Amino acid sequence: MIIQLKHDVTGNQFSRIETCLGEYGFAASRVRTQQGDYLIALGKKDFDIRRIGTLDGVKDIHIVSDPYQLVSRKWKVKTTCIDLGDGVKIQEGDFAIMAGPCSIESEEQIESTIGHLKANDIRIMRGGVYKPRSSPYSFRGHGMDLLVPFYEKCKANGIKVLTEVMQVSQIDEMHDYVDIFQVGARNCQNFNLLDELGKSDRAVLLKRGMSMTMEELLQAAEYLFSNGNERIMLCERGIRTFEHEYRNTLDINAIPMLKEKSHLPVIVDPSHGIGLRRFVEPLCVAATVSGADGIIVEVHESPEKALSDGQQTLNYAESTRMIRKVRAAHELYQKMRDWD
Amino acid sequence: MIIQLKHDVTGNQFSRIETCLGEYGFAASRVRTQQGDYLIALGKKDFDIRRIGTLDGVKDIHIVSDPYQLVSRKWKVKTTCIDLGDGVKIQEGDFAIMAGPCSIESEEQIESTIGHLKANDIRIMRGGVYKPRSSPYSFRGHGMDLLVPFYEKCKANGIKVLTEVMQVSQIDEMHDYVDIFQVGARNCQNFNLLDELGKSDRAVLLKRGMSMTMEELLQAAEYLFSNGNERIMLCERGIRTFEHEYRNTLDINAIPMLKEKSHLPVIVDPSHGIGLRRFVEPLCVAATVSGADGIIVEVHESPEKALSDGQQTLNYAESTRMIRKVRAAHELYQKMRDWD
Amino acid sequence: MIIQLKHDVTGNQFSRIETCLGEYGFAASRVRTQQGDYLIALGKKDFDIRRIGTLDGVKDIHIVSDPYQLVSRKWKVKTTCIDLGDGVKIQEGDFAIMAGPCSIESEEQIESTIGHLKANDIRIMRGGVYKPRSSPYSFRGHGMDLLVPFYEKCKANGIKVLTEVMQVSQIDEMHDYVDIFQVGARNCQNFNLLDELGKSDRAVLLKRGMSMTMEELLQAAEYLFSNGNERIMLCERGIRTFEHEYRNTLDINAIPMLKEKSHLPVIVDPSHGIGLRRFVEPLCVAATVSGADGIIVEVHESPEKALSDGQQTLNYAESTRMIRKVRAAHELYQKMRDWD
Amino acid sequence: MIIQLKHDVTGNQFSRIETCLGEYGFAASRVRTQQGDYLIALGKKDFDIRRIGTLDGVKDIHIVSDPYQLVSRKWKVKTTCIDLGDGVKIQEGDFAIMAGPCSIESEEQIESTIGHLKANDIRIMRGGVYKPRSSPYSFRGHGMDLLVPFYEKCKANGIKVLTEVMQVSQIDEMHDYVDIFQVGARNCQNFNLLDELGKSDRAVLLKRGMSMTMEELLQAAEYLFSNGNERIMLCERGIRTFEHEYRNTLDINAIPMLKEKSHLPVIVDPSHGIGLRRFVEPLCVAATVSGADGIIVEVHESPEKALSDGQQTLNYAESTRMIRKVRAAHELYQKMRDWD
Repeated sequence: MIIQLKHDVTGNQFSRIETCLGEYGFAASRVRTQQGDYLIALGKKDFDIRRIGTLDGVKDIHIVSDPYQLVSRKWKVKTTCIDLGDGVKIQEGDFAIMAGPCSIESEEQIESTIGHLKANDIRIMRGGVYKPRSSPYSFRGHGMDLLVPFYEKCKANGIKVLTEVMQVSQIDEMHDYVDIFQVGARNCQNFNLLDELGKSDRAVLLKRGMSMTMEELLQAAEYLFSNGNERIMLCERGIRTFEHEYRNTLDINAIPMLKEKSHLPVIVDPSHGIGLRRFVEPLCVAATVSGADGIIVEVHESPEKALSDGQQTLNYAESTRMIRKVRAAHELYQKMRDWD
Repeated sequence: MIIQLKHDVTGNQFSRIETCLGEYGFAASRVRTQQGDYLIALGKKDFDIRRIGTLDGVKDIHIVSDPYQLVSRKWKVKTTCIDLGDGVKIQEGDFAIMAGPCSIESEEQIESTIGHLKANDIRIMRGGVYKPRSSPYSFRGHGMDLLVPFYEKCKANGIKVLTEVMQVSQIDEMHDYVDIFQVGARNCQNFNLLDELGKSDRAVLLKRGMSMTMEELLQAAEYLFSNGNERIMLCERGIRTFEHEYRNTLDINAIPMLKEKSHLPVIVDPSHGIGLRRFVEPLCVAATVSGADGIIVEVHESPEKALSDGQQTLNYAESTRMIRKVRAAHELYQKMRDWD
Repeated sequence: MIIQLKHDVTGNQFSRIETCLGEYGFAASRVRTQQGDYLIALGKKDFDIRRIGTLDGVKDIHIVSDPYQLVSRKWKVKTTCIDLGDGVKIQEGDFAIMAGPCSIESEEQIESTIGHLKANDIRIMRGGVYKPRSSPYSFRGHGMDLLVPFYEKCKANGIKVLTEVMQVSQIDEMHDYVDIFQVGARNCQNFNLLDELGKSDRAVLLKRGMSMTMEELLQAAEYLFSNGNERIMLCERGIRTFEHEYRNTLDINAIPMLKEKSHLPVIVDPSHGIGLRRFVEPLCVAATVSGADGIIVEVHESPEKALSDGQQTLNYAESTRMIRKVRAAHELYQKMRDWD
Repeated sequence: MIIQLKHDVTGNQFSRIETCLGEYGFAASRVRTQQGDYLIALGKKDFDIRRIGTLDGVKDIHIVSDPYQLVSRKWKVKTTCIDLGDGVKIQEGDFAIMAGPCSIESEEQIESTIGHLKANDIRIMRGGVYKPRSSPYSFRGHGMDLLVPFYEKCKANGIKVLTEVMQVSQIDEMHDYVDIFQVGARNCQNFNLLDELGKSDRAVLLKRGMSMTMEELLQAAEYLFSNGNERIMLCERGIRTFEHEYRNTLDINAIPMLKEKSHLPVIVDPSHGIGLRRFVEPLCVAATVSGADGIIVEVHESPEKALSDGQQTLNYAESTRMIRKVRAAHELYQKMRDWD
């Protein structure tokens, strides 16, 4: 159960609400976010919702039967809009394209990528400086050395920065140079990291784990929200299956399902979702017409020279063509919504 | 290695080709289909392809390194066209829509469905008369009693019949009342059934098993082809995953991958691919823009009264809207191909 | 619900039982097996079990809430004993060992294997004459040519024959030369084959499909039982997982779970369960102490020369050592049961 | 390639080794652990191993073709012995039993559990104070408040403490009260955590992730070793499969496979491996005879009252019986090794 509190709820009013919940045997957790003040009450007993709903300080009350609460669409019908400033928004009706290299490799690469994004009117650049790698001997990213110029060059060009954070101690150090923190698939149930990102004012893109269910993903997002951060995107990036021909299997079903279950925007990562460059484009288009709110795609000037993920990275010409198709597909998608 | 033989190859010529292969230690199997005469030669030795290629009776020769041969695109670049007669074709550039109920339930239902199909200019009707069911106590289909009127009513309306065959002994009895035999996911490695369908002159739609790899699916199709039947469609119908929210997970990656690996048309079954009626439409559209050659969809006048699969079946209004969207998406897809 | 009928139930008595069930809206199927006469009644209504239990002709009545009925342990607490004649029995307390080559290759091989089995006091020989193969170009077995001598030589030595049947038309032809029909993993939901084997008087070993759940396996076994055959063994042979290092993953959990859910004996196939010769022995021992009723193992005089599955096949020395260990483990297992 | 350095290698000698590797284009990482000084050299070129092997300062050199190096058995044939002090060792030939509650709930519970362990001669107690939970609203452990008395009471009784660490910042705070840090399945690819635990002098039990391959597990262990910690145990705790009847599926195949691939001890967790109390005992026994070096089991005075995991937790009587059986099975296992 979610109790939305009035912005001017007093301490006394709050105490009375808590007391009332306690009488029903409900455990209550208060959640204060950038946008609201909530009380999450969990319990099993039946009770008269009106008795709580009419207490002073209560703005609204919602029964949510899901194992997650604040990220559920059951209490918030409208898809969350994430405003990144400077006119860059992730919101329903728009279609966000995020592109850039797997790893940030050099200042020249940053500039070249920005040129490609601007030519295609893309406002969010992805790029890793801390890289989770299966082997300890692999390249693990350039860290802060390149994050600072990455951010500064993007900022100078009106472009927002998305990059992966791997552990709690990096959050503060990275904070001023990041617009969207990415939580990678391997860290999607790193609950301490989620707790701390929940206290951040930066938006978070949460990737689904390789064998994670919808419910587990939404519970992980609940960690972020219940710690105070409403600015969350869910990211479908492919699941592990028995197929050897591709790296992962993009779960296209997850798109309409997550859109139904949650008010959070859904971003799709076809680069990891199939892991093969020549098939990224059709998956981008498929994600568009399935109702996703955006895509995140690996792009590199010379994929064959990329330090990581080259085999699934588009070059600029491929990226340009993909973007054109995605935008045409999104236009059709919007038009077809009127046929419903 | 595939050796295409000339249509007028003589017995002597054939013997010399076999002898030559034998000298290289290759095992050869002759395959005669509706459309060609082939010799499949498998072996490991290196040899001079020109020595065989210049023998009398040889039309062409192709090295195919895949574990399957005749279904590979490596020797046949153009997608196979399956001509069902009366102007109904499965072919690249067109987009085939196959629709109808899970089970054929009555003559009235057949007529009603035909009405819906004609109103939407659909030329292939699906409907089961032999139903594989997990439990022996479930409804298992009306069999020949309804197959005969199913076929006759369809024929009178210029509609082709697609229905599942479950065992060898049914092939003959069903033959005259079927245009496309469907092999279900549970029977996709029923090799005896595949052998016999390979000897049939009817087209076959081969569903992928619930945990089958691309390679296994193509090897199963090779059973059909190598027994003489080139008129095969591959059907992606969702794989089993850990997700409980949907019945199966549609493998959208399989569409471009199968199209690359094989010259056979690829049909997508979103009804089984997600198992939830409200999400069938976006998956149909996604399949269209991913390069599929067609879809097969469950449609029923009153899904809530269907004897099976009602929860994943569209009603007529939903079906009509889906078809309209799929056709708009296919038009865009065709247009965008020119941008490549 | 299972209604056990008295052996001398009359037609009139039977009609009254059916009528009574019909009044409650229950659909009833009569099942006559080698050992009993049953009425399976499925419905949703609550009703007074005593009203049926006291009808003439009713021997006993059991409420079984599982989706399967006759194979459930809920109505039959004692594990089924399968008597193969000549003192060879599959039964709790004993531990059945079935061994032999993947494929029957020659008469010499049959004789050699029999020698090995006799030296180790093994009474059941496995060996395939019809082989399901992923590729149509692979060796598919010697068929009846070797089944006849296989059976005759075994019979002369007091050994029972287990071999795979792949399709309905083979059942009759094979019948006289088979003691146990094996249904392979790919055919475990070939319902027509199960129907017909259910009408046979031969025992059946039903292998679990590569991604099959416990419930699906037991429902497949229900096909056999409900067609009249009570002589069924369930076989765990490994499931498909993400691990590349082994062919399949033996599901050791399935052993105690199947033993709890069903009264049918549970046989374990470690050869397919891991697919690597050097690990077959520890898995055989593990299966023994987990409560399995037997194992089925691939053994060949010279595994490196075997026509199929050589990489998972034990040679005679390995087999002899494995058998010794399995018997020691079974002795301990029996002793430890007294500690419960 | 692993180059073992002499304990008295000089700076000059080391430089010459590095230079020599550089000439072959090999990247080298030096690894200093509690027990050795290594240089890991990765590259692709062929070269004369003797040229490096004969350099001053080199003790030994091993070609390891695996993607992991130091955890591979290819260079270290003997299983690692982990000495926890006070005569408590994890080593081949012994069989370590670790038992205790899922969560440490109170001082009384600690004392009661110690009593049970002492009565059964168990020297390692498990118990969580930081609990990873899918939902942010679930009980997340008592933290340091109970870790301190947990450790002190165990120490007073000669019992070693195993408990889960979830993030880097906890390592220091927990250090003095922990003998074995557990890394949970969800954190098995939290590489920053592994890096830091690699710098610790405490032993680490690394749980396999729910869909992790052998190779990924061993690479995660390589993170620990390559940061300086050789005292690692691998833990098989069940993988996610399609089966709904149990929480996870214990991968019994992993036991002999990990023992072959790595010199690290392998511990099995049957409690999580099946998730059902009544089946934990047979899996413990099966793990024993499969070659595991130990088991970790959830035990609670009153499982039905446990704050977490009660459904898979043994009570004292069940635990006592399980231990007796496991020891009998281990005795047999040791005896049977002489039959090889």
